[in-house]
Amino acid sequence: MARTASRNIGQSIPRLEAREKVTGRAEYVHHLRLPGMLYGKIFRSTVPHARIKSVDVSAAQALEGVYRVVTIDDIREAIPHPYYGPAFHDQPILADGKVRFAGEPVAVVLAADPHIAQEAVGLISAEYEELPAVFDEVEAMSSDVLVHDVLKPAATFPDLKHLAGRTGTNVALDYHLLRGDPEAGFAAADHVFEHTYRSQQVMHIPMEPFVSVADAADGRLTLHTASQSPSFVRIEIARLLGWPENRVRVKVPYLGGGFGGKLYIKLEALVTALSLVARRPVKVALTMEEQFFMVTRHPCTFTIKSGVNKDGTIVARTCKVVWNGGAYADIGPRVTQKAGFTSAGPYDIENVEIHSYAVYTNRPPCGALRGFGAPQTAWAYECHMDEIAEALGMDKVAFRRKNLLQNGRPQATGTIVQDAALEQALDQVADRLNWNEPLDRGDGRIRRGRGIAVGFKGITAPTTSVAIVNLYADGSCGLYISTVEMGQGSDTVMAQIAAEVLDMDAAAIKVVHPDTDVTPYDMGTLGSRSTFHMGTAVRLAAEDARKKIAELARELGLPEGSNLPLPELFRRKYGMQAGNIIGTASFIPKYEKPDAETGHSRNATPFWGVGASGAEVEVDTETGHYRITKLVNVADVGTALNPKLVQVQLSGAGIMQLGFTTTEEMVYRDGQLTNGSLADYKIPTLLDIPPEFINEHVDSEQKDGPFGGKGAGESTTIALSPAIGNALFDAVGVRLTDLPLTPEKIFRALCEANGTPLAGE
Amino acid sequence: MARTASRNIGQSIPRLEAREKVTGRAEYVHHLRLPGMLYGKIFRSTVPHARIKSVDVSAAQALEGVYRVVTIDDIREAIPHPYYGPAFHDQPILADGKVRFAGEPVAVVLAADPHIAQEAVGLISAEYEELPAVFDEVEAMSSDVLVHDVLKPAATFPDLKHLAGRTGTNVALDYHLLRGDPEAGFAAADHVFEHTYRSQQVMHIPMEPFVSVADAADGRLTLHTASQSPSFVRIEIARLLGWPENRVRVKVPYLGGGFGGKLYIKLEALVTALSLVARRPVKVALTMEEQFFMVTRHPCTFTIKSGVNKDGTIVARTCKVVWNGGAYADIGPRVTQKAGFTSAGPYDIENVEIHSYAVYTNRPPCGALRGFGAPQTAWAYECHMDEIAEALGMDKVAFRRKNLLQNGRPQATGTIVQDAALEQALDQVADRLNWNEPLDRGDGRIRRGRGIAVGFKGITAPTTSVAIVNLYADGSCGLYISTVEMGQGSDTVMAQIAAEVLDMDAAAIKVVHPDTDVTPYDMGTLGSRSTFHMGTAVRLAAEDARKKIAELARELGLPEGSNLPLPELFRRKYGMQAGNIIGTASFIPKYEKPDAETGHSRNATPFWGVGASGAEVEVDTETGHYRITKLVNVADVGTALNPKLVQVQLSGAGIMQLGFTTTEEMVYRDGQLTNGSLADYKIPTLLDIPPEFINEHVDSEQKDGPFGGKGAGESTTIALSPAIGNALFDAVGVRLTDLPLTPEKIFRALCEANGTPLAGE
Repeated sequence: MARTASRNIGQSIPRLEAREKVTGRAEYVHHLRLPGMLYGKIFRSTVPHARIKSVDVSAAQALEGVYRVVTIDDIREAIPHPYYGPAFHDQPILADGKVRFAGEPVAVVLAADPHIAQEAVGLISAEYEELPAVFDEVEAMSSDVLVHDVLKPAATFPDLKHLAGRTGTNVALDYHLLRGDPEAGFAAADHVFEHTYRSQQVMHIPMEPFVSVADAADGRLTLHTASQSPSFVRIEIARLLGWPENRVRVKVPYLGGGFGGKLYIKLEALVTALSLVARRPVKVALTMEEQFFMVTRHPCTFTIKSGVNKDGTIVARTCKVVWNGGAYADIGPRVTQKAGFTSAGPYDIENVEIHSYAVYTNRPPCGALRGFGAPQTAWAYECHMDEIAEALGMDKVAFRRKNLLQNGRPQATGTIVQDAALEQALDQVADRLNWNEPLDRGDGRIRRGRGIAVGFKGITAPTTSVAIVNLYADGSCGLYISTVEMGQGSDTVMAQIAAEVLDMDAAAIKVVHPDTDVTPYDMGTLGSRSTFHMGTAVRLAAEDARKKIAELARELGLPEGSNLPLPELFRRKYGMQAGNIIGTASFIPKYEKPDAETGHSRNATPFWGVGASGAEVEVDTETGHYRITKLVNVADVGTALNPKLVQVQLSGAGIMQLGFTTTEEMVYRDGQLTNGSLADYKIPTLLDIPPEFINEHVDSEQKDGPFGGKGAGESTTIALSPAIGNALFDAVGVRLTDLPLTPEKIFRALCEANGTPLAGE
Repeated sequence: MARTASRNIGQSIPRLEAREKVTGRAEYVHHLRLPGMLYGKIFRSTVPHARIKSVDVSAAQALEGVYRVVTIDDIREAIPHPYYGPAFHDQPILADGKVRFAGEPVAVVLAADPHIAQEAVGLISAEYEELPAVFDEVEAMSSDVLVHDVLKPAATFPDLKHLAGRTGTNVALDYHLLRGDPEAGFAAADHVFEHTYRSQQVMHIPMEPFVSVADAADGRLTLHTASQSPSFVRIEIARLLGWPENRVRVKVPYLGGGFGGKLYIKLEALVTALSLVARRPVKVALTMEEQFFMVTRHPCTFTIKSGVNKDGTIVARTCKVVWNGGAYADIGPRVTQKAGFTSAGPYDIENVEIHSYAVYTNRPPCGALRGFGAPQTAWAYECHMDEIAEALGMDKVAFRRKNLLQNGRPQATGTIVQDAALEQALDQVADRLNWNEPLDRGDGRIRRGRGIAVGFKGITAPTTSVAIVNLYADGSCGLYISTVEMGQGSDTVMAQIAAEVLDMDAAAIKVVHPDTDVTPYDMGTLGSRSTFHMGTAVRLAAEDARKKIAELARELGLPEGSNLPLPELFRRKYGMQAGNIIGTASFIPKYEKPDAETGHSRNATPFWGVGASGAEVEVDTETGHYRITKLVNVADVGTALNPKLVQVQLSGAGIMQLGFTTTEEMVYRDGQLTNGSLADYKIPTLLDIPPEFINEHVDSEQKDGPFGGKGAGESTTIALSPAIGNALFDAVGVRLTDLPLTPEKIFRALCEANGTPLAGE
């Protein structure tokens, strides 16, 4: 290919920020101290659902060194309607008369010394009138216990208007898709299978806990915040305050991981309110433990039913996906829609019906988490695929391959699939697992098995990205983008794209980090969109700069193609080292809103994220303990713009999903989180990484992506859990339907399968 | 006029930053503390000219809490050629083997505690081998004492190349202009007059002393600096370090006054070197006293000779202007050229010869100061005008009016004068003084008089300004410019210009302060150039944004002139509140470089600054004490874009020049400054402001300026000193030729005129 000659594209250029990070000089919000800054510490609800009778802050207020204790009544003086959220304006900045989950912020102590603030939090007490609570998403669908009295969708959120004012329900959003005639399909099918699978509640655990600093004064506000979506924060805070956007400045330095947790609006509403009330800069920095109360991943109950012919053709499928959104909607309704429309899996099925529900419960709120619901749906549809293949006696790879969506065929929405290397990814995993060779399955106590899975996801749409490329007089370059560098390497990839157009080295480009006063709009660093969306905006902005260079050369009377170095062009124009050439561009991909009734759309997603996984496991049948001896993830990332960065993205996402598959789970008793700390909630460590851990991309191209590229951050989260679940079944013949896949569950299932009573039962 | 209907132009819109400043929240570099930051305190030379034999830093280095003591040898490890300057690379970052003025930085102590650093400075000692020194500019022209061995003009500075390597002289630059045949003119004239006038050395005294913070690490540098020229600092520091521009970030928040002192490069080279050496952020903040050693205004000796006919027509004039540049050239050569070419005054003279010399001496360096030399030249030519009129028995206004340059006539360079309201300004001053009515001249001890003067200045050229206008999705606007808001009201005026084009309110525009990574290039906030230059760039950038709005409307299929509100346009384009419209423009005014031999240029200046002043004084003939009872300043500022801001600019410049005229003077004994503190060096206070103090602009228009506007910051500095000098002569009949005009000088002159011996003489 021509592009192999490029000095930027396809090159594993080291991260531009590597040195800064390794030397400890990279800037994070946690470092920031402003003159006169106060620290806010949060007093949280101890009950999951209650009316607040009273909050006694007098002892806290009396503690020496306490500046002020703030409740919702104080906040209302600064912000008359203190409710926020990306999809619904349902979340009060502090609890407002009611609490809806255990851990909800009720009051904040402000002090110059954070230790004093924390001490004062211990002096606050609240009296509650407890209310019945609901925690399970399926129960909540029909429960009399109502988490919210009335639905309050954001006016700015497209297509939720019809929900405004809806009462008497915990269902925040119901999404539906109908293709063909599933009932007729089931009736005509040789076999019908139905299963239900559950995903648990887990947390993002960014290594940098949530932190925001607000500095509000004189009708202006500056927010320094660990956010993935500075542009959104600006717009939502401006709405809360009734201010124009340009009086709200949102700055994001480096981010220590986000994974979807730091999207939309989190601590920003609270610190803004506190700064307005206190008339001082205010910082709120959560502890690792408090993060569990900020935002989590949706638990999900997914009932999937398929009609299948003898030859293995799937002819009909219905999906009922119920998403446990917790107490506040956050971006749950979007997850419901976006993961909803792909919940029948990457298969070519004539008759499909999907119902996907966002449901309120009395748990901590749930939002976006690496994959935006796709891992939960794939957990269901890919276990289901294996169960069907098993029942039909078909090879699991062959069964999938038979039904896989091919490029050029319509997905359930009607959108024609393009540039989705599903079969290639599946085949590559099978190859790395030596699928066609027999496996040593062991005998006696230790049994071995292998599993495979494939999945896909749509990308959030419509969204916009804007970029500015600024060429300085010595020919060096600044790139102004609101994409957040959160460890994924976006600075480097964006610089590579700009450098490729401008014919310079990526390392010579300075990426200016998000500052909404200066870097232009970007919808957010989320959902694998940056490389494709911002990457395209950067490419176009750099092309605009090139065009202006050519215009300048013409203006100076130079012959076409004279290729005078840029510094010399500037010197001729301005008589000295001076001036700029500024290229700008915005990008919004083609998109058609799905029909509200049928879910049909000819353009439901800008591109497809594709991942396939395979696992080999070794199970101790006496204890249920197991080892993953080999784990293979293969993703379609289009052209790998930076192969090394792609590799790190794929393995990082794989390790994260490994935790969600094997150990991680937020465990509750009566609505109280019992393991909300890293001592009890177990994330993977280096020792948990399988001895053979292969992460690869297929050789493909996203034709409308920048230099053929597309996102890589989520692909290997999609199919990993079912690959392991399927491998466990392959090893010991028991099917676990609920994540995580713990030794205890295997042990219990083995006992049940063997008819062995459990000790003590 | 149509523009009176504008809601922006011609309106006295309150300063956008007023609230921030009044509440004490405005950001200044002095507030900034970075983690791990060290403070640098300077050990200075105690002799005016010497070879350094040794510097003993051992005691300072041994003081507990001292991080490091730094000399030029340490700096050379980080910066091999540590010499800087805008016109000549003649200034070492710290003294390099030699000191050239008393007060020159020799070493710096770094410590986390600035008090410890200061204490350690007291423990440093140096041994010098003293050299003969030269302090007077005229002496230095022919002295054997050489301040520099060889001239080192900056390669980047236009038109100094021919000076490179010149040796054996203190003349850094000689500028010459010849028009007609002055010798023949003198020979034919009815009268020839020759006088010499002197201006003293004064200081800018910004209320915010010089301060810079450098944070250098990992091949990148961020400077937070109190600078009037962030773009220049970036380029010069990048040159010093051999780095590309985009690895040097220069940020300037609000500036507490500059007046030309904070131009080009000052502390920035030193803090950069210190941060590189220490590998820590470093702050250097001068005391008010230390400012006297940073940069000052040129003393000047000006011999002017005119041939005049009986009817008052000036037929020939020669000017020899010698500028005392101090030990380092700074921007002195530019002052020499720019104030040189107007030094024959705003008169229409057939035969003109000008010689203007920048001269090194062993004084603190001299640079730009509000007026860029024009006040020193006008002091000479306007006293001279009065002396001639007196000798001819002509009315002083009539004599000037007879000779004034009219629009359409060539100035000495050959540039045709346009939009210079010289006569209008002169007449308006005469009117406010009731020039045609007799004055009560008093008798006995108290005598009264009045004086008048007029002058003009050219504007630095060629220079470039670039602006970015960013429209956010709710229609609010950000303006990215590198113009420094230093109290002059530039934020407000630039917002007014953008708002006028965009049909919004100026107060709705957020001006983003200089940050070279994001705000585009501007040559500097200096020399009355911002309103005209950056104002035009802002106007063009806003027009570019308007054009893009119209394109967007067309793209959306809206009928021409549909005037859909901007937020709605964005919503239709992006489906939500998202996106940007970004307008950009650069501006470089027409300019023709003066011929090196003759000084001729058809376009020597982008526009003309014009000021006229008048004064009434009351002199106590027994003591020489005097009161200025009425002071009138009238300036041509084109259209007053914001009349209130213009008013404040005019009165501020007037008060500053009042100090330079009456009290301020840096006094030396053997090269040692004897009054380098505000206790001894007297700047004007409120009580020094004349009871009648009128500052006005004429009704005029700068046709190629933005909405008819041009700069207003320097005009009232030009003619004020000679107006007072002329009034004193008018009152008591003695002519003072040397500034400042102290009671002692008047008393001495009166004694001499009366033949009265001075007591004790």
